[in-house]
Parts: sequence; C-alpha cells; structure tokens
Amino acid sequence: MISRVLSAELAEHAGQRVTIAGWVHRRRRLKSVTFLVVRDRSGLAQVVAPGVAPGAEPCAVPGAEPCAVPGAEPGVVPGEETVVRVTGVVTANPQAPGGAELTEPEIEVLAEPTEAPPFDLYRPVVAAALPTILDHAPVALRHPRLRAPLEISAASVAGFRRALDRLGFTEIHTPKIVASATESGANVFGIDYFGRPAYLAQSPQFYKQAMVGVFERVYEVGPVFRAEPHDTVRHLAQYTSLDAELGFVRDHRDVMAVLREAVAGMVEAVRGQPAVDLLDVTLPEVPAEIPAIHFTEAQRLTNEFEPDLSPDQERWLSEWAVREHGSEFLFVTGYPMAKRPFYTHPDPLREGYSNGFDLLFRGVELVTGGQRLHRHQDYLDALAARGEDVGPYEGYLQAFAHGMPPHGGFALGLERWTARLVGAANIRQATLFPRDLHRLSP
Amino acid sequence: MISRVLSAELAEHAGQRVTIAGWVHRRRRLKSVTFLVVRDRSGLAQVVAPGVAPGAEPCAVPGAEPCAVPGAEPGVVPGEETVVRVTGVVTANPQAPGGAELTEPEIEVLAEPTEAPPFDLYRPVVAAALPTILDHAPVALRHPRLRAPLEISAASVAGFRRALDRLGFTEIHTPKIVASATESGANVFGIDYFGRPAYLAQSPQFYKQAMVGVFERVYEVGPVFRAEPHDTVRHLAQYTSLDAELGFVRDHRDVMAVLREAVAGMVEAVRGQPAVDLLDVTLPEVPAEIPAIHFTEAQRLTNEFEPDLSPDQERWLSEWAVREHGSEFLFVTGYPMAKRPFYTHPDPLREGYSNGFDLLFRGVELVTGGQRLHRHQDYLDALAARGEDVGPYEGYLQAFAHGMPPHGGFALGLERWTARLVGAANIRQATLFPRDLHRLSP
Repeated sequence: MISRVLSAELAEHAGQRVTIAGWVHRRRRLKSVTFLVVRDRSGLAQVVAPGVAPGAEPCAVPGAEPCAVPGAEPGVVPGEETVVRVTGVVTANPQAPGGAELTEPEIEVLAEPTEAPPFDLYRPVVAAALPTILDHAPVALRHPRLRAPLEISAASVAGFRRALDRLGFTEIHTPKIVASATESGANVFGIDYFGRPAYLAQSPQFYKQAMVGVFERVYEVGPVFRAEPHDTVRHLAQYTSLDAELGFVRDHRDVMAVLREAVAGMVEAVRGQPAVDLLDVTLPEVPAEIPAIHFTEAQRLTNEFEPDLSPDQERWLSEWAVREHGSEFLFVTGYPMAKRPFYTHPDPLREGYSNGFDLLFRGVELVTGGQRLHRHQDYLDALAARGEDVGPYEGYLQAFAHGMPPHGGFALGLERWTARLVGAANIRQATLFPRDLHRLSP
Repeated sequence: MISRVLSAELAEHAGQRVTIAGWVHRRRRLKSVTFLVVRDRSGLAQVVAPGVAPGAEPCAVPGAEPCAVPGAEPGVVPGEETVVRVTGVVTANPQAPGGAELTEPEIEVLAEPTEAPPFDLYRPVVAAALPTILDHAPVALRHPRLRAPLEISAASVAGFRRALDRLGFTEIHTPKIVASATESGANVFGIDYFGRPAYLAQSPQFYKQAMVGVFERVYEVGPVFRAEPHDTVRHLAQYTSLDAELGFVRDHRDVMAVLREAVAGMVEAVRGQPAVDLLDVTLPEVPAEIPAIHFTEAQRLTNEFEPDLSPDQERWLSEWAVREHGSEFLFVTGYPMAKRPFYTHPDPLREGYSNGFDLLFRGVELVTGGQRLHRHQDYLDALAARGEDVGPYEGYLQAFAHGMPPHGGFALGLERWTARLVGAANIRQATLFPRDLHRLSP
C-alpha cells in the first residue's frame, strides 16, 4: 500500500515528516504562500507551500501545469481534483483542519484530471441543481456534503444487521428474477429469461417467509425493483430494502418490538459519524416502546375516514406523536384488510381489520409490516376470496403445507430512511446512482 | 414473543419447567414411551411422552390426529413437521441431544402440516436427489445438512464485511439495471425499462471503481446476473458477488493483501459454526502471505501454454501449492492482457502481461482481481485498441476524467466459495433458490 497517514490522524504525528495522499480539494494561492487542501476518505488536510512569484500567471485550473513557484520542488502546484501524494512536516496550526498542517511539502502528482468538475467541489455549499449532480454523480459525490448521506446509509445498514444478528437472525440472499408478477401484479419489470418471460422481484416477501420455516429469523439487505410510472421526489425504480421476518410471534406486536430494536440499532450506528455533524442531522430518540395507535383512532384524530391514510394524515399523525408522546416514531396498527396484501393476518378480534402496521417517521411511512397468515388453508381461502389462482403461488405455498409457525416481518426502504434522517427533499439525494422513470445512467 | 428457551440452552435449565417451540423433527413411538425430537433454529431437543397403549394403531404421519395415548393430555402426539410448543421439566439425560430432555410434557400444536415432506427430514443423511431438493426447497432446506451451507454462507459474508470494515471500507449499493451491456457484451439479460431496452448488471465493476473516487475503499455484497447458456454444476444465472475496490495501491499486490484479509476474515467467521461440525468441514489455513506464481510460471509448471488456464491446470496448480507451500490458496498473477477486460492495468515491466490475478482455492478459481487503469487517456487508448466506442462508457469514464488514484479490486462468488468449503459437487447445493438455464422457481 502507498505508505501514508490519513488526514484525520495528522495531529497525532506533530513534528514528524509524514506522507498523505488524496485529491487536491482546494488550491489557494496568495502572494507569499500557497495553501493546498488535500481531501482523503477521512477528511481534509492543509498543506502550506511557498507562494507564487509576484507577477506570475495563475496556473490553469484544473491541471498540474508547472508554474514558476520559487522554492517549490519540482515547481508544480497541482490544481483541484489532482490526485497527489504529499510528504511534509506536521506542524501545529489551530486554524488548519484538525489543528495541524503539512509544511515543507514535496508534492507528487499521481493522476491529473482532464476536465473541470461540473461545480466547485471545495465550496461548503453545493452550487448545483439536482439533475447536474445526478448526471455527474461519479465526481459530484466527492463533495463531502453529497457523500455524507451515503455514509449515513452505510452506517445505518451496519446497525440494522448488528441489531438483528444479536437477536439470532440469519442473513439470506434471495432470487431477484422470479417467474410470476405475483405480489402486487403491477409495476413489475419484465425480463427475457432464456426466451421465457420473467420478472424482477418487487420484494423478497415470499422467500423470507419460506425461510422462517428454515431459520426462524431472517433478514435480507438487497435491491428491489418497482416499475413506478411516477415521476416524484419519493419514487425509485430500484431501492435497497431492509427486510426481516421472524417466527414464533404471538402477533404483530412481537414484530414491532423487533423493528424497534432494528431502528434503534440504526440510529446508534449513525451516531458519531462525521456525516451527522457535517449535515447537522438531529438524530431521533427511539423510545423503549414506540407509541402505537389503531388505524380507526388515526382516522378519528384526523377526521378523515378513507380506507388508507393520505400523506397529509401521515404528516399530521407524526406531528401529533411528537406533541403527545414526544416521539418522532409512531406505529399505526390494524390497517383494513382490504388495503393489505392477501398474506396479511386478520385481527382475530376485529372484523375487517388486520394485524398489519406501518411505522411513521418524521411525517412519512418508513416501514410496512405485520403478522402474516401461517396456516395453509388460510392461504387457500385468502386467494380464493380475492379470486386469485393458486398456480403462480405454488412454490410459496409449499412452506405452509409443511407447517409454519405464527410469524411476521417488515420492510424498510433504506433510501427513504436516509432521506428523512438528513432532511433531503428528494429521495435521489440519498441514493447512489438512482434509477427512475427517466434515469438509467450513469 | 412466545416465551421459550432454545433447544441449545435446555441443559442450562435443568430441573426447571420451561417451554420450547419448533417443529416435530421426529416422532418415535415405542411400547411404553414416545420420543418427540423438536427442531428449532438452535438444534434439537428431545421430549419424552407417555407411550402408545399396546395394540393401538400408529397415528398417520404427518398430522396431529388424536391417538389413544394413555396419560397424555390432551392425547395428541403430533407428527413430523407439526409446529409445536412444548412445556415440560428439563431432566438430565446423557443420551439426549445436549444432555437434557423434557419430561412430563404438555404439547400444544401451533400449526399442522397438510402434506408429507418429499423425503424424511429426520434422517441424518439426505435421501433425495438434487432436483427433488431444489423443487421442494422451502421444506427441503429444513434438513439440517441442507440448511448448513447457507449458515456457512451467512457467516462468511459477515466475516468478509468485518474484515473490510476494519480496513476503512464503506459499503455501497449500486444499480442492478444498466443502460448498456458493456462489461463483457455477452450473456446479459435484457429488460423492458419503461419501454426502453436495459440490462441486468453482470457486476458492480464500473460503479465500485467510480466510488474509489468518493470513498477510496468500497465493498458491495449483492446479486449479479449472467445469462449463462451453460447447464453445468458451476454456472448460475444469479449469484451473490462479494466485490471490493480500493485506491492508493502501489499495484495489484496491495489488492492481494486486502483480499487475503477478507478471506481470512471469512474463514474466521465460519470457524465454530455448528454447520462446520455437522458437515465435517475442514477449514483452510490462510497463510499470512498467500503464495503467488506468475502466469508464465504456471504454464511452465503444467507444461501447457494456452493464453488462459484450463480447469485441469487450476486443479493441478492447487495441488502443487498444497505440496510445495502447504497452502490451499494460490495466487496466479500476470495473466495475459489479451484475456483480461479492457480496464486491466498492464504489467509495466512485462509487455503483454497484466497486473491481474486469480486466487485459486481447492482446485478452482475463487476470485478474479487486479489493478485497473486509472488515467483517463489510458482508458481511451484501451477502448480504441479494442475497437470499442467510447459512447456506452461515458458515465464510467467520468470518474477518470476527474482524477483517480491507482486502484484495484476483486470479486468473489459467495456460492462458489461455500460450495468449495463444504465440498458440494454442485454449486446449487450452496445456493438459496438457484436460478439457471432451466430453473426459475421456486
């Protein structure tokens, strides 16, 4: 490996001659001195080089055109986004990032950019519109503020896994190519599968349920695909779904308790990430028991009685939960059976209502989950009641024909979580290379 | 949650009355006693119930048909795969699994199977052919020996991530739907993407490279898709790829050093898993430095001089490495440029050869990796030399136009790893719901 210290570790090496490596984040040439700020994965480091001779022309930006810099060897002051290795003496300077800077530098250019970035990566605030950012994602995401949501995503997933690993879950990887467009029937992408029609999986629902019969408790972190014909700030054609399913539950409340642990694990893992400070993210408290209200109570409170909650109702309920319970999370339970998928377990005590729930977070539905049917006959009845053929569900129904415990689970959209957490107006700001109705590249 | 102890914890509760829950793995009715073996995610637990009255008919298997069992309340001895909750007294018995069994049981049926499994799940050896197993995967994988490879997979992935997390890598999730069939041009699945042609990604190669410019070190664990028209024991249409890519390397040897850490982390995570004992897996030692030979030396040793290694050569070389170096892992470095993808970095000292490598493990190529080109002009030249248009690579080339450090990476197929580790003859034995030329369900 190129022997180097990270910028975040610089201060630990005060007085030593060390090597750093990264990208020239910013070059600032003053009369008597040139400041280079070098960006690496840990942050920024300042390098102090001799200044430009009076009257010398500024170097072209970008590029590593040799400029007459008296005293600098080999006389090169590389421009922004040049990849460099810099060896110098670590010198304390309270004004430098991290409290130390490199002086007496030798600068080696590892690679030169051939184009200027679409906007200045070194400015604290991003001066580009979202389409520009998305079209130039490979370089735009180098901006610390644009990279930060993806760091928060990565930490969130690690926290999700850690919480579920602790609870005895097993990680699975399920097929993304499926034979029938079964779960919702609409919004699926068709594939040519060796000359046969097939589809991209909209969720690992059927597989994770089947695996309850094998591992009892499973999770999957993977892509799901929705051919959403909507061009909105909330819809993606591919997103990362955090799915979990567990057996031997009493009912949906046990699923909600596990979800609470998963979300708490995610928040815990994000806490302390530099990205949280950079984006000034206020992390939510996750109550030991997240407040829950029944769907009918949610209708009554909002004085709207449609069979599903509108985005407005969800926003209002979220604010209500903060006001009444001091919680940014709110469970809504008991959604009407008519609005939930056929595998949903009904509420045994309340005709027409289900053991399905949503988890609202900061005004939006973050998670959908619930208890599922577990008896084979109940599946046959549920499909018959919806006028659906058993044929396409044959593989799925096997699990139930061979004995399945009461079980349930949930699915959380990673990008939606990250977007709400960092306060992004558009889910694409929390997505690495988003796919949507119009966007298929980069 | 249903309050229960796991079968593996039973012995810790000697003398107490506890509840377990799981599937009836085996029912054995003797004259004076009936043994129920209950399977849960942690293992097996034995339950001792009063016997069948002399002359009584054996209960039908499967099912929970009430049989006249004197003294049993409510007189039900459930059959195999019935989901049960059993409360009883933990009694030491050296012959029982884990050294303890449940006596004086009360048995509650949570769900009944409606069909018999396609083969006996309780027999230590699986008495079914692979097609039967695959057709009935939701129930077949309940067999502890068939479940075990998937447990080893899950542990391997956890070890992979842990090793790379320690080294400062960031996890990413990249698009699986791409605009052009670029990387190899063949064997891609076509998709109808909102009326436009698109393809399933064969690898996250381009995206992980671009992300070196953002995070320096990235990994992804995710599905990749190959429309392999081959019906072999080695090919899958979807598999789980463990991908990593890192910047600021001197050359491919730094990539190999990181790969060594990742593989060591995988072996470490698998060590101690019950599945290892069950399948009698011999774990490999991962040498502190994995032996490496140059491609030309591999040719010389095997006395074959084709521009790529044949499966026979790979087997021979693997055996040679064990003999000569006591290592089940062997790096072959310096593959000919002509046989590697266009983004491969040439060996600067040896015309025609590359800084690409393979890692052989137990006779097969487990990993492909190498140093990549990092200068924009080198990419333009490499594409021109292969007579390829720059157009489809535009998004990819952005990263290099804006300055990229020397970098490299590797990809490891999870199912292939697991199959070699457990000694499976067919990769489908190490794959959850495999997809291939003929198989699209369950």
